[in-house]
Amino acid sequence: MTLRYRVFIGESKDFIENYISSLNIDKLFAKYVASVLLAHLYTLMKSGIVDRDSGMEIAKELIDIIKTDGEKLYKWIERKKIVFEDVFEAIEAYIHEVVDNGAGYIAIGRSRNDHVSTVLRLFARDTVLKFLSELLELRKVLLEKAIEFRGTIFPFFTHQQLAQCGSSAIYFLSHEYALKNAWDSVINTLRYLRENPLSSGPAAGSMIFLDRDILSRSLCLEQDLIPPYYATGSRFFLLYPASSIALTLSEIGRLVEDFMIISSTIPNALEIPKEHIATSSIMPHKKNLVTLEISRAKIKKVIGLANSLMNIYTSIPYGYNLDLQEMNAIFIEIMGEAISILQVLKDFIKGIRINENAIIEYVKDKPCWSSEIVEYIAYTRKRPAREVYMYLSKLFRDYRYGDINTLNSIISSLGLSFDDVWNIIRSKPVENYLKIMIENAWKRLERDRTLINNISEELQKCTAALISNELKM
Amino acid sequence: MTLRYRVFIGESKDFIENYISSLNIDKLFAKYVASVLLAHLYTLMKSGIVDRDSGMEIAKELIDIIKTDGEKLYKWIERKKIVFEDVFEAIEAYIHEVVDNGAGYIAIGRSRNDHVSTVLRLFARDTVLKFLSELLELRKVLLEKAIEFRGTIFPFFTHQQLAQCGSSAIYFLSHEYALKNAWDSVINTLRYLRENPLSSGPAAGSMIFLDRDILSRSLCLEQDLIPPYYATGSRFFLLYPASSIALTLSEIGRLVEDFMIISSTIPNALEIPKEHIATSSIMPHKKNLVTLEISRAKIKKVIGLANSLMNIYTSIPYGYNLDLQEMNAIFIEIMGEAISILQVLKDFIKGIRINENAIIEYVKDKPCWSSEIVEYIAYTRKRPAREVYMYLSKLFRDYRYGDINTLNSIISSLGLSFDDVWNIIRSKPVENYLKIMIENAWKRLERDRTLINNISEELQKCTAALISNELKM
Amino acid sequence: MTLRYRVFIGESKDFIENYISSLNIDKLFAKYVASVLLAHLYTLMKSGIVDRDSGMEIAKELIDIIKTDGEKLYKWIERKKIVFEDVFEAIEAYIHEVVDNGAGYIAIGRSRNDHVSTVLRLFARDTVLKFLSELLELRKVLLEKAIEFRGTIFPFFTHQQLAQCGSSAIYFLSHEYALKNAWDSVINTLRYLRENPLSSGPAAGSMIFLDRDILSRSLCLEQDLIPPYYATGSRFFLLYPASSIALTLSEIGRLVEDFMIISSTIPNALEIPKEHIATSSIMPHKKNLVTLEISRAKIKKVIGLANSLMNIYTSIPYGYNLDLQEMNAIFIEIMGEAISILQVLKDFIKGIRINENAIIEYVKDKPCWSSEIVEYIAYTRKRPAREVYMYLSKLFRDYRYGDINTLNSIISSLGLSFDDVWNIIRSKPVENYLKIMIENAWKRLERDRTLINNISEELQKCTAALISNELKM
Amino acid sequence: MTLRYRVFIGESKDFIENYISSLNIDKLFAKYVASVLLAHLYTLMKSGIVDRDSGMEIAKELIDIIKTDGEKLYKWIERKKIVFEDVFEAIEAYIHEVVDNGAGYIAIGRSRNDHVSTVLRLFARDTVLKFLSELLELRKVLLEKAIEFRGTIFPFFTHQQLAQCGSSAIYFLSHEYALKNAWDSVINTLRYLRENPLSSGPAAGSMIFLDRDILSRSLCLEQDLIPPYYATGSRFFLLYPASSIALTLSEIGRLVEDFMIISSTIPNALEIPKEHIATSSIMPHKKNLVTLEISRAKIKKVIGLANSLMNIYTSIPYGYNLDLQEMNAIFIEIMGEAISILQVLKDFIKGIRINENAIIEYVKDKPCWSSEIVEYIAYTRKRPAREVYMYLSKLFRDYRYGDINTLNSIISSLGLSFDDVWNIIRSKPVENYLKIMIENAWKRLERDRTLINNISEELQKCTAALISNELKM
Repeated sequence: MTLRYRVFIGESKDFIENYISSLNIDKLFAKYVASVLLAHLYTLMKSGIVDRDSGMEIAKELIDIIKTDGEKLYKWIERKKIVFEDVFEAIEAYIHEVVDNGAGYIAIGRSRNDHVSTVLRLFARDTVLKFLSELLELRKVLLEKAIEFRGTIFPFFTHQQLAQCGSSAIYFLSHEYALKNAWDSVINTLRYLRENPLSSGPAAGSMIFLDRDILSRSLCLEQDLIPPYYATGSRFFLLYPASSIALTLSEIGRLVEDFMIISSTIPNALEIPKEHIATSSIMPHKKNLVTLEISRAKIKKVIGLANSLMNIYTSIPYGYNLDLQEMNAIFIEIMGEAISILQVLKDFIKGIRINENAIIEYVKDKPCWSSEIVEYIAYTRKRPAREVYMYLSKLFRDYRYGDINTLNSIISSLGLSFDDVWNIIRSKPVENYLKIMIENAWKRLERDRTLINNISEELQKCTAALISNELKM
Repeated sequence: MTLRYRVFIGESKDFIENYISSLNIDKLFAKYVASVLLAHLYTLMKSGIVDRDSGMEIAKELIDIIKTDGEKLYKWIERKKIVFEDVFEAIEAYIHEVVDNGAGYIAIGRSRNDHVSTVLRLFARDTVLKFLSELLELRKVLLEKAIEFRGTIFPFFTHQQLAQCGSSAIYFLSHEYALKNAWDSVINTLRYLRENPLSSGPAAGSMIFLDRDILSRSLCLEQDLIPPYYATGSRFFLLYPASSIALTLSEIGRLVEDFMIISSTIPNALEIPKEHIATSSIMPHKKNLVTLEISRAKIKKVIGLANSLMNIYTSIPYGYNLDLQEMNAIFIEIMGEAISILQVLKDFIKGIRINENAIIEYVKDKPCWSSEIVEYIAYTRKRPAREVYMYLSKLFRDYRYGDINTLNSIISSLGLSFDDVWNIIRSKPVENYLKIMIENAWKRLERDRTLINNISEELQKCTAALISNELKM
Repeated sequence: MTLRYRVFIGESKDFIENYISSLNIDKLFAKYVASVLLAHLYTLMKSGIVDRDSGMEIAKELIDIIKTDGEKLYKWIERKKIVFEDVFEAIEAYIHEVVDNGAGYIAIGRSRNDHVSTVLRLFARDTVLKFLSELLELRKVLLEKAIEFRGTIFPFFTHQQLAQCGSSAIYFLSHEYALKNAWDSVINTLRYLRENPLSSGPAAGSMIFLDRDILSRSLCLEQDLIPPYYATGSRFFLLYPASSIALTLSEIGRLVEDFMIISSTIPNALEIPKEHIATSSIMPHKKNLVTLEISRAKIKKVIGLANSLMNIYTSIPYGYNLDLQEMNAIFIEIMGEAISILQVLKDFIKGIRINENAIIEYVKDKPCWSSEIVEYIAYTRKRPAREVYMYLSKLFRDYRYGDINTLNSIISSLGLSFDDVWNIIRSKPVENYLKIMIENAWKRLERDRTLINNISEELQKCTAALISNELKM
Repeated sequence: MTLRYRVFIGESKDFIENYISSLNIDKLFAKYVASVLLAHLYTLMKSGIVDRDSGMEIAKELIDIIKTDGEKLYKWIERKKIVFEDVFEAIEAYIHEVVDNGAGYIAIGRSRNDHVSTVLRLFARDTVLKFLSELLELRKVLLEKAIEFRGTIFPFFTHQQLAQCGSSAIYFLSHEYALKNAWDSVINTLRYLRENPLSSGPAAGSMIFLDRDILSRSLCLEQDLIPPYYATGSRFFLLYPASSIALTLSEIGRLVEDFMIISSTIPNALEIPKEHIATSSIMPHKKNLVTLEISRAKIKKVIGLANSLMNIYTSIPYGYNLDLQEMNAIFIEIMGEAISILQVLKDFIKGIRINENAIIEYVKDKPCWSSEIVEYIAYTRKRPAREVYMYLSKLFRDYRYGDINTLNSIISSLGLSFDDVWNIIRSKPVENYLKIMIENAWKRLERDRTLINNISEELQKCTAALISNELKM
């Protein structure tokens, strides 16, 4: 008979077992579950609770599960045709079946509650790192565009209307800067993914004192004990990255809106990479920005899912409740969508080209220089800026887009030419500061790359040590 | 070469094609796509645009797709190993490949935009009917419990504290009544799932006037033309059922909370069907109400997804945008979760037993009769109710749960016995009205069952006629 | 001493009393509270529980509160400087103070829970009617624009790109049709605002049987008893209109996006009413569509608040909980925002003018006719539409916006002129159907106007009868 | 004539002006607007753009506005009866009116867009600090309870069922730990509230180079230029604290649920501070936990509003849009609700007493020791834990709450007494670690207190210097 926790409860129905089982999505967790169990096993072996021989036999199986990323376990499950409650039940049943004896000894000093909260931290840590790495790539691509199109004019909108003209670098640096902040907000969440909930038991602690040296070193977790009801009952550590990622995506949503709107507003201003375009089944001229449209929708999906997470969470009393299991599936969905959005947008930005001629053509009959001219006249002629503004307002009163004559007469009336106007715009202080901004941005990028590389390396070392059996002594 | 719309655009990348393709979830739509195409084909045949022979050949393939619920198409897709944009592109490519000629003629008088909005209505209609049918079952189970436990005392809570005692029938009738309202709100949405968007073209109408007789009869849709930009651009018809279903579930969430809280508050008051209980891996006495916990979480997931739907939708300009495609996947997820919640809760309610002894034991040292006694004394002794209330308030001032002596002395001071109190409670007007309430509820249930049975039969007839080729003349 | 419910509990702190008191927002409810109490009073007088003289004295005060829309009560509250828990406590205290005796007798046969759920229905009914009336106005304005600009060309977008050209009437009819559906979804919710929760007591019924004739006639409510735990514990009747209104606004959000995007994409296509424009403090030429921007944001605020409502609601057990009180404030906020959005947008739409010349100028170098031409060629020359599509695709391959030469050569290669193209577009079947669509829309408008006028009149009659004392016999 | 930006646009309507004006909520911003203008003024004076005399006159007015927290300005506005667009327009109009000349000169080197984004950072910084300070108080109260009830037994629940017993300190330390994490997440957001957007102009930079020394020192902002489109267009700096605060509250929601459920489940276990209780108008024995109920609802309101914020934000293109103005009102609402929740809950927790006798009475017929006993037996008798678990499971099979005989026979069959069981539970390793956990928590509290005190002092110094005119040189 295969070990099942519910064996003494009795009856079950298939559709209910499927309803409460998390076995399918748990496959993503299998290697982490095996890792935590392995560290736990080594600790039990060290303290003599599990004897060396059966310990080594169990360890071998767990290492296989880790190395096959869960495949070995899930093939066994498939053969068994049992709807286990979750991967924890399944892995324990598996060990019981394949290892002669000793398997029953590892169920001490632990509960599903402290183990699942450890496993989730390990999974979330790897996944958040993946997200951070993709976000760094997107920042890099934005920065490269700032450099590539540094001298190219770009239209800046406020209220969805042309407001100013300036270097394209300002545009790309602005978005890179926003995403740098977003990146910082996400990396802050890693800290809670190093907390070590082991020994917390189901809610208020285990009876067994386990040596925390192996537990922490082999899983790259902190040594310190944390309050056990927090350790097992809180999902702050999942909500925090989910929130920060929803926040990051909401910032990215505006980048997406920009490209949608610039594309539709300024004919030919952007050359879009062909892979990101689809056409109509009936209007052959259509070039639809489908990856942006999908991204726009997926961002709001993630925001809604983050809302679900918070509302599921805040409505339940403390301690483990199975509601938390549903949160795992949502977290996985959020991370999957978020990472795919970054990958696609990175490719999109990388491929775009800015067509300066089209932009110049577009702005030639629209004033994108009025704020600069107000300031320029006020400053050089020592007039109150508000007075100059009022003077210009009057002249602009009946101007409509396309009315180049009015623009000409406004500029002449100020004693300027169009060339003067462009020179004035190009002399804004910020334009001279771009070089420094770009350099600073590169430095930050490199520092951040080093940061996550170091973390990744550390994690690899922990895992390598764990599965190489070096820690079992 | 297989027909692809993007053939003249050029390059593509796998991860991007996967990002924008809806092919996987579209499998649920395949039979509806084939149905709409079949009705369209018959109309073209009738008007002579498609000749009879190639028409019959195409019809045969479409009927096969309908009968195999898409299997035939998706097996072909699997063999082709092409990431089609969606099922529309795939089915057209399939027809082009398997039918000698004539396939190119069906691409007239239609666009993906009017067809997808028709297909979504057909799919949503079947799915909403399934939801309504399950919700009716849940109402029935609640009503059966009202009858089964009509004479059994039940604790009524306000502010999560015991407020009144009364017949269990009041409890179950209340929830049934709420769900009757919710049911009404959902069936209202069916109306927009009969709108007929065919002939709307991509946005502002097709060039071809198609006879609407076959189109409407074979798909059980209305004949009337509707404004084409609405027809292709709006998803009101999806948002409306999604909203009403989120609303229904939010009402059901309170039923779930009730059972969670009664279970934990009144020991043994409820006998829970064993299939709905799981136990702990380490605390063998635990009997966790896991299906309720999962339901509670899933309800908030659905509410979050409904929020995503609205936010995706409201942020895009009119006309078809690919954001709408992401909405389809969310709609499917909402419906799937909603139906599974109903199925599980129906089974839960059906299986519970109320243990009156446990309830009586629980309430014996707690007053669940004070509002009745205030009214009774005021009424029978012609005293102002507020004065009686104030008098009782004073007596209750230091009462704490369990202090049965205070309860006794309060009741005696009013010249009553505990038996009097119970008799008073049982004589509330509402208790005498329960029989009528139950009868009325049964009548509504039967009426509603007939209603959806009639709709289902009508839909089956339309489909039968469509695939039996009767309509092609 | 003024009557307070908490007098036997003891201490209180100001900041806590303010935290739990709903007195401020309750002012909107004051007249409804007085109305319900008045109907209750008449019923008690009829059954002899309250004697005629004190009854008439209390009635006078209640009628004053109704007629002053709560002012009389709230001035008294201001003088008392008491933070009452809510308007129910305040009004009872007020009656106790100003009426010599008999006041204590009205506290029978009722509780705050059944009264508040009645009051909320009355308030919501009036507010939802106001919303429906404004929405009807917006539909009317859209229909008037359909007529005014019936012959004017309009650009139809899909994927935020120009797709087709057609009559402006198609555009306005489409939005009116969507809002007609939305209107229907909101008027459906009125039904639950006629439910009569009186006699339900705090949770499971009152001891006193009250004659329901006066109660229902004077408040325009149904006579039937409803299950009391539902009657007092459910807020389905608030969530349902809130959901439908969020849904309506999400449809309207797309109308807003349209005007934002057409304004920024097609220079001078729309003449915007000046009141809806603001300018920049530093860029005098800017004409910002500020009312649209505010509306766009408010719509998402309402969607978020509707999400809050559902999540507050679904997480609490049945029966009255004070969480429901917070929902009232949110409901009021939703209704206030929703009505203001409708009023502003109605004024916006009413004021816009479509500048056909600007649209023709815009579309002259962009194909908004390709789907029509594919169908026209296929139909008239009996070619497979897909083949014609493929032929055109090839020609469009290198076309970019502005490239009028390519357009010319495409059209010529088909043996057509630009005039032919425009004639073809104008001959779409839907263009001939516009007259009927407009007529049908007018009929629906008139029917709907009659419908809500009738309801309003009925409600006025009930109120008139109530305050004229006619019902007290 | 009073200065108005829209003077050259023309007509306006009252209800529209009210719709777009933020004047009312802007009152909270008035002192910050004056501060930013003052720093700007000093900078202009230093660079000679504004002369000393008119500069000093304007400075005096701005200082008055700061010192009166906006009162002076708003009284003037009230007299003028003008619906200004916002406080920026109002303050400029005010200066123009009250200062003879020179007022027009300050409109240079700035726009509303860079100023509002500075003002919002200053406002948010103060408000977030207030929140952090209240949250620190709540943490302190939790820690004090951990000390006060360190030796008192507490029930730990999982799945809303009694799971373990342990020291109350574990309970309070767990929540303090969770809130420590939440506190960290909020203080991280302060960093972006020091960014200095001045000189960014409306979108892409101002023409005027302003000395950043005064600007940064007098407002406690960083010196560095940041990309101007980010500086004016992003609201990351508002969304980030709003998200973190919603997250914090969602963690606090579970604390609230705990107290609701313990109160209703374990009679008399908690003594609730009287101020937090309300009673029923008709059931005098009811002691409703109304502050918890309100808090529970407000938390979900905040989560919904945070959802609104993100959705408003992500849907608009970059650069300033008036949608951002609506976000300010939502942000203010979030912060107001959040701070009031903390204040009330702090008072609640401070006032509760745990009644150990009631808890012991409650747990005496329920096993809260089974996980400990499984581990104890397994460990001391060197049995496989799973085997012991299975053995106990069998014994517990028919146990129901209250069945003290079964508990006795289970314990005897293991050769233990109830005293043994309690001694075993009290010897869990975590119980010995509590002293260290408490000490560490105190240290963190003190460190965090110092941290925000230092920040507050720094901000006060900046403001003091600003209004003392010391910086104008």
